[in-house]
Amino acid sequence: MTSRVLAIALDCHDPEPLARFWCAALGYAVVKRWTDAHGVEYLELAADGEPMLLLQPVGEDKVVKNRMHLDLEPRTGGQREEVERLVGLGARVVSDEPEFPWIVLADPEGNEFCVLPRS
Amino acid sequence: MTSRVLAIALDCHDPEPLARFWCAALGYAVVKRWTDAHGVEYLELAADGEPMLLLQPVGEDKVVKNRMHLDLEPRTGGQREEVERLVGLGARVVSDEPEFPWIVLADPEGNEFCVLPRS
Repeated sequence: MTSRVLAIALDCHDPEPLARFWCAALGYAVVKRWTDAHGVEYLELAADGEPMLLLQPVGEDKVVKNRMHLDLEPRTGGQREEVERLVGLGARVVSDEPEFPWIVLADPEGNEFCVLPRS
Repeated sequence: MTSRVLAIALDCHDPEPLARFWCAALGYAVVKRWTDAHGVEYLELAADGEPMLLLQPVGEDKVVKNRMHLDLEPRTGGQREEVERLVGLGARVVSDEPEFPWIVLADPEGNEFCVLPRS
């Protein structure tokens, strides 16, 4: 008996602009919206064969570096070209150091993620 | 141009026991170990067709609820049976409330994750 990863859930303040960012970043679409017992609306972002991203509105602010984050790889093109595209979508560069292969960005709500070169 | 999720990276203190927990939880194996320019060893946990989990040792403690977490679904069997199995592996139950379909657990380093009923 084991479990599978059904979704990667991300707490947020404002799910609509964050959904637009992550859908454009990953080529995902909002495939479902549903409301929990407390009236909170969740957004499911998905694409065939890829892990689902679930945006979950919360009251708390982001206060420290996220302990879990996504590592992204461009499907086509180069790493820097993809970083530029993501910055154009609303991300910002957090760190870009020559000794590491990854470039650290943050999404419009400050959630860190990394962009690696294509393997 | 889009990116794909290459890995879900999780900061940790002690990657070996955490790797044992997550490999048993998800049916993953440690497929690769590599060291960055600062001598930090990363562990890649993976299974065919599933998102990779990357354990990344850091100095910082976990101080707040993780803003990103995994939602798990049992591959077979029931939700409570799977929660019991995960607790046996070293997780603890954080919250189990009748108005929500998910049960919130924490891994051996306190990282929250949810177990849902099989869909």
